[in-house]
Amino acid sequence: MIIVVKKDCEKKQFDNLVKWVKMQGVEVDLSIGKNSTVLGLIGDTTKIDKDLVASMDIVESVKRIQEPFKSANRKFHPEDTIIDIGGHKFGGENFQIIAGPCSVESEKQVVEIAKEVKKAGATLLRGGAFKPRTSPYSFQGLRESGLSLLLKAKEETGMPIVTEIMSVKHIDLFKDVDLVQIGARDMQNFELLKEVGKMDKPILLKRGLANTIEEWLMSAEYIMAEGNKKVILCERGIRTFEPLTRNTLDLSAIPLLKELTHLPVIVDPSHASGLSRLVKPLSLASTACGADGLMIEVHNDPARALCDGAQSLKPEQFKNVVDSLDVMLPLVGKKRDIL
Amino acid sequence: MIIVVKKDCEKKQFDNLVKWVKMQGVEVDLSIGKNSTVLGLIGDTTKIDKDLVASMDIVESVKRIQEPFKSANRKFHPEDTIIDIGGHKFGGENFQIIAGPCSVESEKQVVEIAKEVKKAGATLLRGGAFKPRTSPYSFQGLRESGLSLLLKAKEETGMPIVTEIMSVKHIDLFKDVDLVQIGARDMQNFELLKEVGKMDKPILLKRGLANTIEEWLMSAEYIMAEGNKKVILCERGIRTFEPLTRNTLDLSAIPLLKELTHLPVIVDPSHASGLSRLVKPLSLASTACGADGLMIEVHNDPARALCDGAQSLKPEQFKNVVDSLDVMLPLVGKKRDIL
Amino acid sequence: MIIVVKKDCEKKQFDNLVKWVKMQGVEVDLSIGKNSTVLGLIGDTTKIDKDLVASMDIVESVKRIQEPFKSANRKFHPEDTIIDIGGHKFGGENFQIIAGPCSVESEKQVVEIAKEVKKAGATLLRGGAFKPRTSPYSFQGLRESGLSLLLKAKEETGMPIVTEIMSVKHIDLFKDVDLVQIGARDMQNFELLKEVGKMDKPILLKRGLANTIEEWLMSAEYIMAEGNKKVILCERGIRTFEPLTRNTLDLSAIPLLKELTHLPVIVDPSHASGLSRLVKPLSLASTACGADGLMIEVHNDPARALCDGAQSLKPEQFKNVVDSLDVMLPLVGKKRDIL
Amino acid sequence: MIIVVKKDCEKKQFDNLVKWVKMQGVEVDLSIGKNSTVLGLIGDTTKIDKDLVASMDIVESVKRIQEPFKSANRKFHPEDTIIDIGGHKFGGENFQIIAGPCSVESEKQVVEIAKEVKKAGATLLRGGAFKPRTSPYSFQGLRESGLSLLLKAKEETGMPIVTEIMSVKHIDLFKDVDLVQIGARDMQNFELLKEVGKMDKPILLKRGLANTIEEWLMSAEYIMAEGNKKVILCERGIRTFEPLTRNTLDLSAIPLLKELTHLPVIVDPSHASGLSRLVKPLSLASTACGADGLMIEVHNDPARALCDGAQSLKPEQFKNVVDSLDVMLPLVGKKRDIL
Repeated sequence: MIIVVKKDCEKKQFDNLVKWVKMQGVEVDLSIGKNSTVLGLIGDTTKIDKDLVASMDIVESVKRIQEPFKSANRKFHPEDTIIDIGGHKFGGENFQIIAGPCSVESEKQVVEIAKEVKKAGATLLRGGAFKPRTSPYSFQGLRESGLSLLLKAKEETGMPIVTEIMSVKHIDLFKDVDLVQIGARDMQNFELLKEVGKMDKPILLKRGLANTIEEWLMSAEYIMAEGNKKVILCERGIRTFEPLTRNTLDLSAIPLLKELTHLPVIVDPSHASGLSRLVKPLSLASTACGADGLMIEVHNDPARALCDGAQSLKPEQFKNVVDSLDVMLPLVGKKRDIL
Repeated sequence: MIIVVKKDCEKKQFDNLVKWVKMQGVEVDLSIGKNSTVLGLIGDTTKIDKDLVASMDIVESVKRIQEPFKSANRKFHPEDTIIDIGGHKFGGENFQIIAGPCSVESEKQVVEIAKEVKKAGATLLRGGAFKPRTSPYSFQGLRESGLSLLLKAKEETGMPIVTEIMSVKHIDLFKDVDLVQIGARDMQNFELLKEVGKMDKPILLKRGLANTIEEWLMSAEYIMAEGNKKVILCERGIRTFEPLTRNTLDLSAIPLLKELTHLPVIVDPSHASGLSRLVKPLSLASTACGADGLMIEVHNDPARALCDGAQSLKPEQFKNVVDSLDVMLPLVGKKRDIL
Repeated sequence: MIIVVKKDCEKKQFDNLVKWVKMQGVEVDLSIGKNSTVLGLIGDTTKIDKDLVASMDIVESVKRIQEPFKSANRKFHPEDTIIDIGGHKFGGENFQIIAGPCSVESEKQVVEIAKEVKKAGATLLRGGAFKPRTSPYSFQGLRESGLSLLLKAKEETGMPIVTEIMSVKHIDLFKDVDLVQIGARDMQNFELLKEVGKMDKPILLKRGLANTIEEWLMSAEYIMAEGNKKVILCERGIRTFEPLTRNTLDLSAIPLLKELTHLPVIVDPSHASGLSRLVKPLSLASTACGADGLMIEVHNDPARALCDGAQSLKPEQFKNVVDSLDVMLPLVGKKRDIL
Repeated sequence: MIIVVKKDCEKKQFDNLVKWVKMQGVEVDLSIGKNSTVLGLIGDTTKIDKDLVASMDIVESVKRIQEPFKSANRKFHPEDTIIDIGGHKFGGENFQIIAGPCSVESEKQVVEIAKEVKKAGATLLRGGAFKPRTSPYSFQGLRESGLSLLLKAKEETGMPIVTEIMSVKHIDLFKDVDLVQIGARDMQNFELLKEVGKMDKPILLKRGLANTIEEWLMSAEYIMAEGNKKVILCERGIRTFEPLTRNTLDLSAIPLLKELTHLPVIVDPSHASGLSRLVKPLSLASTACGADGLMIEVHNDPARALCDGAQSLKPEQFKNVVDSLDVMLPLVGKKRDIL
């Protein structure tokens, strides 16, 4: 950490600052110039509150040299983390496809989709039981009973299940869920992060609507700081001024995360764009730039051909995406896992 | 709600759509043109899921005419809602100032600040006990014991207290808090919104980091739909590309909210900019465009003169802001409440 | 400027860097720590290309201490710049109101509005002759003949005129314009900035759609570097994700600019929100936080009562805004100029 | 276009609106409901000013059904446009790689890079002669003499050249340039768009810093409306809150543009991220989702190994990118052109 002190600061204030910095357990490298004095902090600065320092009257500016995350940092853990979920590995040269319906609606629906996506190449089943909805008047998911239906589908197909948790009160309900999802709106629900950090279960951490990559890694750090090292990151688009897509998928994040962290990174092209016809090109693009997997929405409701647009693919469209991925994966040195 | 159907849709799909719409309890006005067919939905459409309709294959586009919020909507409740907190009224021609430290640190600290801000004109005391921090390694607040210290300060000064809740697990701890704050990061923590919606207590709902005004009102609606009508909105800046301020304060939101909703609206200029020297001009601007109050950070720690910058004012600076407001308030037809 | 060099850089590369930096005419303060080496550059670094330095392989990060703008910088010019336009002063304790139609349409229209806004308190007349429009099929303004009509209105009323230039080819046409406007879309049309920098005429520089405050000041610097020191800045909102207003007015920019620069700063509340009913509250808010003036759209077309909404006020509504400002201006130590 | 009229509008105003709409040359489909009246406009509405309609007092909201662009619209021109530049085709199944230095600096530099990138697989040579720089104190390019050097390199290698125009005054200087670039900051420099629209030369139109896809296509429309149909679009990232990359590359724009327009679309991964180490993954991702080509910065200056980071690749790194593309291109049905 580099602290630039204002030119006209009082000696007493300056001495207080140096004393305070040393109390944080780091050494200080002093560089006194004509126009400014620079303090170089040497040692572990992850626990120093940058905002607090920036707020000091005598401080002109502060700059971190070290990243503020540690457990998630590739510098301290150069090897890719491999996370095994029911025999399916995330990270390294493995490539996994998670698929399933937006919301769990009935046993028939979820079991059928599960079978179809399994046949097409998915290794994990996704499905919303607790649904975060902007409006209190929109369908909030089947909740507890939605979880049971997912477990039925798991029983029938052998696929591990992924579903979103929305409250610390529901931790016990998720004991049989294989991969617990933290949704975009909860990326900075810090109390929830702490609780899932105590679970002995992999966590799928989606990027927040308008969060930076560093904030995202700090949220992974919240989970890891509690002892749970099994975190998978999921890029799902960020909020911008562009109205044609629901969000703007940030694919630069994939290679950047691969440098910054050892954790697996997957992409959700369905939620990112909100348009099913973009799922295929964005799936290919995500894979081409290094993603460790994809999470794709698939629906199977012929009676609802009416509302089959938006972000969900039909099973045959999903199959077509998987087939294209199969041609591309060898080029990027990845191997799709097979159930 | 206006639904524009694609030109080349099949008759069967179209009939299915019309049938589905009528099942939602609204009437349909049909307008068949050469290039498109338009369905005008007549009746209460707040419970129709716009995204679901937009996702249908045969739908070109959907547009809401009615706002999707009801309890918070001024159309159905033209009078300003007045919320009384310990004898201090928010809304109408009332103007309240909430002040206090960023974090509660000790009894001495919080009681002293409370006395100082009370003397200077604040009517409610704010202070963080549970602190949302980007890093798990930053100070997370005194938590339960922070709440006790706030209650001590309330006892000493008679000021009602405002503090942030971060988990549904903490509901019981907040039974003596006068105004329960939902922070920006929790604006779409829907399970928490539902829980505070069951409390018999005013809720201070901050705008999310990157949320639209409509989403904000939908979050108010979550609370109100559970029965709790005492919601105060707090604008605190949104995330943009501008790096000189922490957030960009959106003051257009104030007059817009005054049209859209009957709920009181206050502004937090301290968090919005993150710079204490902007608190005075932004306080005056907020008041000039119709805010019902302000929430301002004040610190009193002479030993920490070191870190007195950033977003907190010293008590004498806070007094100066209040004095300026006193000159401006009559111009906008507001009356500052006095403890 | 602070340059942090990577830990593992080669000695030869490092020596090259130090040599290069010295060739830029600044001195170097070296601080060698365990984890990083920091170069403090002492002297005038405004002409050092920060991006170039950041791009060097051995550089970890660069941070400017000095602002990269000089002529516009209040540090080197502590007094407010006062710009006189036909006897009307911008800056200091002066407050000016510019008003007029969005587009100049006819002699009758512009002369009538000019008289009305003059009577109501405007000191300068605005009106679009060359109009930047998103679509090539939209009305592009009366162009040359629009300028003539503005000059007619100036003759009739004595009001100096403000209008937008869109091409370096039109410089000669603007010789009788009193205040030449650079629109938001041209804020980084650098060739145009250089040309107006050679004019002996005040320039009104609007902030770009998505530009930072620093970039805006660098654009002012382009004009000033050519010799023209008469630049007035105009905040007009920035692009965000909020759809209810056309742009998000950034009022924090006003007090920040007052610190950073000595140039006058005005606000355009009409374009910022795109909603005439927000013009009054945003005018009051802008004034309350220190603006040196306002630019407001006024229309007078009774035959077009049809399209009187959006961002233009009727003359009597404009008068009402001016009356409110008259009550507020003394509070902020400003004096409205009178024609 | 769908116009929703306010419930309580006066009959006379309503009749005026209908009359006005018909004067615009379209037919009107009327749909009168209990809560609102909807006008469906039938015919060519591209020339109707949506903002003007939205601004009318009696209008609740307006929605375009047709896109406001015509010449660029795939609906009216279903076949891909193929643009031939010196024998190299853009569009259809063709794939072109443009490469070269950020700035032209000397004959030796540009000729050498040209030879190297040609050998590695580039078919067109890029190089900045006129440079848009945020600061007036930064290097502004060699300007006219930079153009001469590019022409020298063209002579030596036979590669067509691509370079940016920044002023209508320079049109004549660009008569021997093969592909004239409009930079991001000039995407809405409408007077410049009109002038290049009169050239008989292909135009490379970059997306603006914070412009929507629709605005971008409207800028293409400006060029095409003047008669020049040879427009190639270039995605180069948009401005968001993410600080780790210079811009956020919006790859969803590629498949969306492929639906909306028949024009070729390429990607500039160098400027998008500002980081040379992201060029390869982003090049692969761009290709995977359907881009018709890439524009990549390459430098060759061994003496400046110092500043070889940032966004430029060394020739051997560039060669490595091309080799990877060669493996991927068949999968997406594209064929890389060879010089």
